[in-house]
Amino acid sequence: MSKEITSRQQDYSQWYNDLVIKGSLADHSAVKGCMVIKPHGFALWEKMRDQLDKMFKDTGHVNAYFALFIPKSFLSKEAAHVEGFAKECAVVTHYRLKNDPLGGGVIVDPEAKLEEELIVRPTSETIIWSTYKNWIKSYRDLPLLINQWANVVRWEMRTRLLLRTTEFLWQEGHTAHATAEEAITETLQMLDIYSEFAEKYMALPVIRGVKSANERFAGAVDTYCIEALMQDGKALQAGTSHFLGQNFAKAFDVKFSDKDNKLEYVWASSWGVSTRLIGALVMAHSDDEGLILPPKIAPLQVVIIPIYKGAEKKDLLEVKGRELAAQLKAAGLSVKFDDNDNNRPGWKFAEYEMKGIPVRIAMGLRDLENNTVEIARRDTREKTSVGMDGLVERVVQLMDTIQQNMYDKALAYRDQHITRADTWEDFEKLLDEKGGFIAAHWDGTSETEEAIKEKTKATIRCIPLNNPREDGKCILTGKPSKERVLFARAY
Amino acid sequence: MSKEITSRQQDYSQWYNDLVIKGSLADHSAVKGCMVIKPHGFALWEKMRDQLDKMFKDTGHVNAYFALFIPKSFLSKEAAHVEGFAKECAVVTHYRLKNDPLGGGVIVDPEAKLEEELIVRPTSETIIWSTYKNWIKSYRDLPLLINQWANVVRWEMRTRLLLRTTEFLWQEGHTAHATAEEAITETLQMLDIYSEFAEKYMALPVIRGVKSANERFAGAVDTYCIEALMQDGKALQAGTSHFLGQNFAKAFDVKFSDKDNKLEYVWASSWGVSTRLIGALVMAHSDDEGLILPPKIAPLQVVIIPIYKGAEKKDLLEVKGRELAAQLKAAGLSVKFDDNDNNRPGWKFAEYEMKGIPVRIAMGLRDLENNTVEIARRDTREKTSVGMDGLVERVVQLMDTIQQNMYDKALAYRDQHITRADTWEDFEKLLDEKGGFIAAHWDGTSETEEAIKEKTKATIRCIPLNNPREDGKCILTGKPSKERVLFARAY
Repeated sequence: MSKEITSRQQDYSQWYNDLVIKGSLADHSAVKGCMVIKPHGFALWEKMRDQLDKMFKDTGHVNAYFALFIPKSFLSKEAAHVEGFAKECAVVTHYRLKNDPLGGGVIVDPEAKLEEELIVRPTSETIIWSTYKNWIKSYRDLPLLINQWANVVRWEMRTRLLLRTTEFLWQEGHTAHATAEEAITETLQMLDIYSEFAEKYMALPVIRGVKSANERFAGAVDTYCIEALMQDGKALQAGTSHFLGQNFAKAFDVKFSDKDNKLEYVWASSWGVSTRLIGALVMAHSDDEGLILPPKIAPLQVVIIPIYKGAEKKDLLEVKGRELAAQLKAAGLSVKFDDNDNNRPGWKFAEYEMKGIPVRIAMGLRDLENNTVEIARRDTREKTSVGMDGLVERVVQLMDTIQQNMYDKALAYRDQHITRADTWEDFEKLLDEKGGFIAAHWDGTSETEEAIKEKTKATIRCIPLNNPREDGKCILTGKPSKERVLFARAY
Repeated sequence: MSKEITSRQQDYSQWYNDLVIKGSLADHSAVKGCMVIKPHGFALWEKMRDQLDKMFKDTGHVNAYFALFIPKSFLSKEAAHVEGFAKECAVVTHYRLKNDPLGGGVIVDPEAKLEEELIVRPTSETIIWSTYKNWIKSYRDLPLLINQWANVVRWEMRTRLLLRTTEFLWQEGHTAHATAEEAITETLQMLDIYSEFAEKYMALPVIRGVKSANERFAGAVDTYCIEALMQDGKALQAGTSHFLGQNFAKAFDVKFSDKDNKLEYVWASSWGVSTRLIGALVMAHSDDEGLILPPKIAPLQVVIIPIYKGAEKKDLLEVKGRELAAQLKAAGLSVKFDDNDNNRPGWKFAEYEMKGIPVRIAMGLRDLENNTVEIARRDTREKTSVGMDGLVERVVQLMDTIQQNMYDKALAYRDQHITRADTWEDFEKLLDEKGGFIAAHWDGTSETEEAIKEKTKATIRCIPLNNPREDGKCILTGKPSKERVLFARAY
């Protein structure tokens, strides 16, 4: 089965597509640019969602659900927002179909035209702040710490499964505060939660930073982000958290009376991560045999496969296999005992490797005699024959070992791919030959950033938090600079 | 606060609306007919969703996610489906906006017209079966037992919060099988799961039955349902499970090769419940003081409220209150200790009554001296002063008592409101004066059902499963009938 995957070296982009489809994560939908998230991919998303949801709730957030449709006029209310989001989006213009009088199935009923067109939400700041206007009157109503899990639509011309599709799933937090400090603290808290989630659960090291003006969210005062590195040396923005100032409160006239009964505009943050994280997971960890999933978010952690010829000794293996599965489950692991006779063991080995299941345990007849099993780690592909004694503890411990190993490996790769460049020549050469993040000086202007992007396709991924001050000269213009920023080509 | 609610007797419909909005379940959205599910309502939905999801997974189902958009032509592929669903729906015709050259904000870009319009899914049979065509080749691929949690849109002219809105949230299961028997077994299994969920968790007694042809899902061979009774004597369909035969497999050409290598069309079921269940919960149990939520799905089961004047003795109450909250949490209950100084105890009492929290514990200074607390049950509004000894066990047990009492009360009401009618006169009189389900004979024709509906607004809610055979004469036409069916006016 592994032979069906294009290797990374041969064609990284094709390798990614092969993995997503053959690893049963996602598939193309009948509508161009939309995707189907398949059961294995969705189970992975559920693990990620549930963990994030817990972290949100542990920090005092609650979930709610706002509407899918946004009146067109709402998008124009915030000046910067309209430029960023009111362009490529799905527009609902009619609310009824009717039978074609000429017999051609159904047609749009021209009489059922909406007075004002509706936009399928590309993000929900506008619809939510129009609602917050009704919910916020006094300082007693603040803070509002609300999150929404939802589907959103952005009409994309060039799509890639999980990374960039017309419809995707995400969460979007929208908070309202009495002071700027509180909103900024919230913005940074959520950035920390995202980075903790990426590092501890996805085994994905990230750099926390702030975006330059060019890459800022449309309507934000500041956009913070976590940036990860993929195996081809390209960066991927894995989550963003925005300090919105009073921009949306002003656009939707949301004021509160403070303790002194003075009316003030409300301060805001918004923050989100999406199913694109699944794409990041694939590209950061997987190999030419298939997916490699971190144990903490793998929908299935251990698969047990009995090996036999004929049905003769199957019964004994069944008993032992189910016993072991029950013990591992009791220890808190998710386990499947796969005795499906429709497929042979070799097929199953390849299938679970493809799907990235962290640990495979094979049991043959000789194992029964010797009281052993064969354990195979997905991350290193090491196989070890081990005794049944202490097996459960061993497998439980192996989960931590694999999780840590995946993180260490990704971190080592990432750290080897942060390179300083001090001349334009070096900068271009590094981008083309080594990839990764390039720490370089920049004169701080949008024009220079734009010029660098046009010449090299590299963008400023972020200005890292706690960035050391260092005097230098802009890599392109030679103008003075006070700190290095991180450039990369990105997904 | 309770004074703000219209009483049931005064105006049942207004009572319902007051409860939904003041009980913080849902609110109107800026888009006509759409709703916002507020944090308290969404937390309730999460409890319901998580329990249902567990029941689905325990019976071998997995979740996936299909696309929001359906190509218009798909809706015409199944002859009955098109009549039922290709009418009142949201139609996406364009994919881009642009700045109005006349300066009026943004307008739809006429150049960005879609070749084929997209429909926002009203239900997903068509898009899912077009996908199953790629997933199903052989009997080895069957059964497919897939569920999706999603938003759907049906353009409704008359909407009511939670009960009938343009957009709502639901789950839709879509299963594929090798035989008709297997698909029917699945259909009935899911009906059982829905009725178990309604009765055990929502404390809502339901009648399981099959729909008449008039009320059948568009595209189904048979539609099974659970029907509940509201406090105004109207019925509410709380969930449906459809045996789809090979209708969608034929429409989308989905065949599988069986063990003998013969090509056969696949058999199907689909089943769903929605956020309308929250509306059913409100109408079945609540009173004129607010919501009454069953402990098993209440987002918050116990609230502890300290009562004091001035801050003097607050510290002691804080210690005792937090201690009790921790003990109740350790016993598996969800508990909030509300010592917010912004609101007075009386305000809090009304607020938690309004939100339907099953148990309120009040602690005053005298309670501290006497080592007692006051427990108030939301369902009966009984208050009891009890000692601290054994309090945790008492509260845990009270949850079961309340759950059972709510069910018993709803069941008694329901059973008192199933009445037999043998003459047309009685039938009309019962509908107008008593309401509830009326068990009457019917000649089995759609014409008669339609005529009865026109005369009385009552529909056949279902033909109960295991309905006793009984010879009789149709209530309207006098033609012979073999069994009684259940009529009611319905939501």
